[in-house]
Amino acid sequence: MKIDGKPTRTIWLDEDGRSIGIIDQTQLPHRFVTTRLATLADAAHAIQSMQVRGAPLIGAAAAYGLWLALKADASDDHLDRAYATLLATRPTAINLKWALDELMAAVRNRPRAERAQAALARAGEIAEEDVAINRAIGRHGLKLIEEIAAHKKNGERVNVLTHCNAGWLATVDWGTATAPIYMAHDKGVGVHVFADETRPRNQGASLTAWELNKHGVPHTVIPDNTGGHLMQHGLVDLAIVGTDRVTAQGDVCNKIGTYLKALAARDNNVPFYVALPSPTIDFSVSDGITEIPIEQRGTEEVATMTGKTKDGRIETVQVVPDGSPVANYAFDVTPARLVTGLITERGIIGASRAQLAAAFPERSQSR
Amino acid sequence: MKIDGKPTRTIWLDEDGRSIGIIDQTQLPHRFVTTRLATLADAAHAIQSMQVRGAPLIGAAAAYGLWLALKADASDDHLDRAYATLLATRPTAINLKWALDELMAAVRNRPRAERAQAALARAGEIAEEDVAINRAIGRHGLKLIEEIAAHKKNGERVNVLTHCNAGWLATVDWGTATAPIYMAHDKGVGVHVFADETRPRNQGASLTAWELNKHGVPHTVIPDNTGGHLMQHGLVDLAIVGTDRVTAQGDVCNKIGTYLKALAARDNNVPFYVALPSPTIDFSVSDGITEIPIEQRGTEEVATMTGKTKDGRIETVQVVPDGSPVANYAFDVTPARLVTGLITERGIIGASRAQLAAAFPERSQSR
Repeated sequence: MKIDGKPTRTIWLDEDGRSIGIIDQTQLPHRFVTTRLATLADAAHAIQSMQVRGAPLIGAAAAYGLWLALKADASDDHLDRAYATLLATRPTAINLKWALDELMAAVRNRPRAERAQAALARAGEIAEEDVAINRAIGRHGLKLIEEIAAHKKNGERVNVLTHCNAGWLATVDWGTATAPIYMAHDKGVGVHVFADETRPRNQGASLTAWELNKHGVPHTVIPDNTGGHLMQHGLVDLAIVGTDRVTAQGDVCNKIGTYLKALAARDNNVPFYVALPSPTIDFSVSDGITEIPIEQRGTEEVATMTGKTKDGRIETVQVVPDGSPVANYAFDVTPARLVTGLITERGIIGASRAQLAAAFPERSQSR
Repeated sequence: MKIDGKPTRTIWLDEDGRSIGIIDQTQLPHRFVTTRLATLADAAHAIQSMQVRGAPLIGAAAAYGLWLALKADASDDHLDRAYATLLATRPTAINLKWALDELMAAVRNRPRAERAQAALARAGEIAEEDVAINRAIGRHGLKLIEEIAAHKKNGERVNVLTHCNAGWLATVDWGTATAPIYMAHDKGVGVHVFADETRPRNQGASLTAWELNKHGVPHTVIPDNTGGHLMQHGLVDLAIVGTDRVTAQGDVCNKIGTYLKALAARDNNVPFYVALPSPTIDFSVSDGITEIPIEQRGTEEVATMTGKTKDGRIETVQVVPDGSPVANYAFDVTPARLVTGLITERGIIGASRAQLAAAFPERSQSR
């Protein structure tokens, strides 16, 4: 997508052909900083410190990280150590392991002299595949927005609510939930986004709002408490969110608070869609509520907020009283019954076991 | 309630008999500061700047403010000017006008020499009436907690979720939603509170958590996004919230986000109660969603957060990107169908036109 008019991706091969460029997302939204990854250690640090985040982007960064490792030392030993180092950076990220396994398959049986080149080629393919998947998600989701736009009076925008960041910053380009929005906007369909702030970590206010703003998409940041009120008053036409994992029966695990928005959407007849690349579907899990363990993260994410002071310093402040305990559940599960549809690269499908199996027979049958 | 063991109210007649003491709530939770109001201007400033906030406390502060005005000048002119000054501090606060009208009725037909004394007496009564109402709410709500506790295994606590601050800090003492909780705790019934952070303004994290902590009630601060997940997993036994206005048919207007918690409670069979003093019922309004205009407040409440830095300074930081618009709806409306019951000073009643009219015939029939 664009930053102030300039097409940009979240990760790229540097002009020197020897390093990788990324946006340091820990500095957003108050500072736009790009940085170069020249070594395995750089790549591991970038993933671990969340300079790059979002499942698809983590996968691409890990793939390029293995290339950086092999460029320095293409031995079996070093390959295995690099694989282990990168895998340990974010132990629960499914895409990370998938991307590393893809790279291993591409290089292991080659002579050392060819390994780095083969790794770079496969890493580039992984990045391009992500872009292609998101573009396909965008094309399918665009139809939903266009259908609503067709029933609007002149000049009225389609209002989309989203939660957290399933934007291009979480992928290589386009994003998942945002792909239909960017396509609609670029095509001249009037679209406006309500971006949930998304406590804790504030990915909606920090990342979604930033990328929409830089691309020029009209949007409004709202507290997480606000979406229900907006839906009651007809101010939301549809909700589109991303997901970390979809189960075989269509339950959706996503950033904490997604479930509350799905309930409000159902109570007010607002369509609630989930955009996802199909690798996000986990056919080994059925009931999301009982089977998916919900990670509890550090309490400082709730107890503090980081932002910009009036004089431009980045400062972290404590927002709970000394002595008050805090809980930080990272995700919740939205039951399939509340999901209007899943926007995948193969089209929009119902959130049910039958429809998921029909759309992805090669994956559901292998179980 | 207690602060570190010492019984404290939010407003009191100073020992000198000539001024009013308050807690400066704008300094909470990081600094506990009390301040004296000696003049009408002090009282008006305290209300306007939200050193005192919460409908019942605003009413008591305004009443004492009129006393302070009459103490300085008991003329008709000054009385009228003081009334207008105090009324203008928070134009939408219903209790403010009610308390001022009570004071006017108590002093207007008296000779000047008696007015200040009469005002002080009536202000004191208003404060005591608030305490008595909240104590009655507490006694009725306590039964709900005790019933749940009776079915718990040894040592298991009753988990109550609350939103925003309907605590003793919003009243003269006890609070509304918190009164049953404090009574249960003081009686030795094991109770634990999940306090929603409550963005924007963070009254849950700043005020509810602070007062529970100071009184010694076990509690956990959670992001507003978390309650649905907790309810899905059986971690919430009941929800109790306060309200700014209840309509004749039982719709509940309260801090934005209350509706989302009510939806989650319904979806998970968690009882959802609203605690209120009966003056909060507005028999002139029926459908809360269509008839109650929702105030939009300043965007800086969403765009910034205030807290304590590591070195103890209070700092405000911007948490949205430069250039991203923000919306700040202050309240939402929870339809009566989602409310299990209303905990009032006359007992627990259903959120319906018939039950409200039966419980408060003298008020519903005057319409």
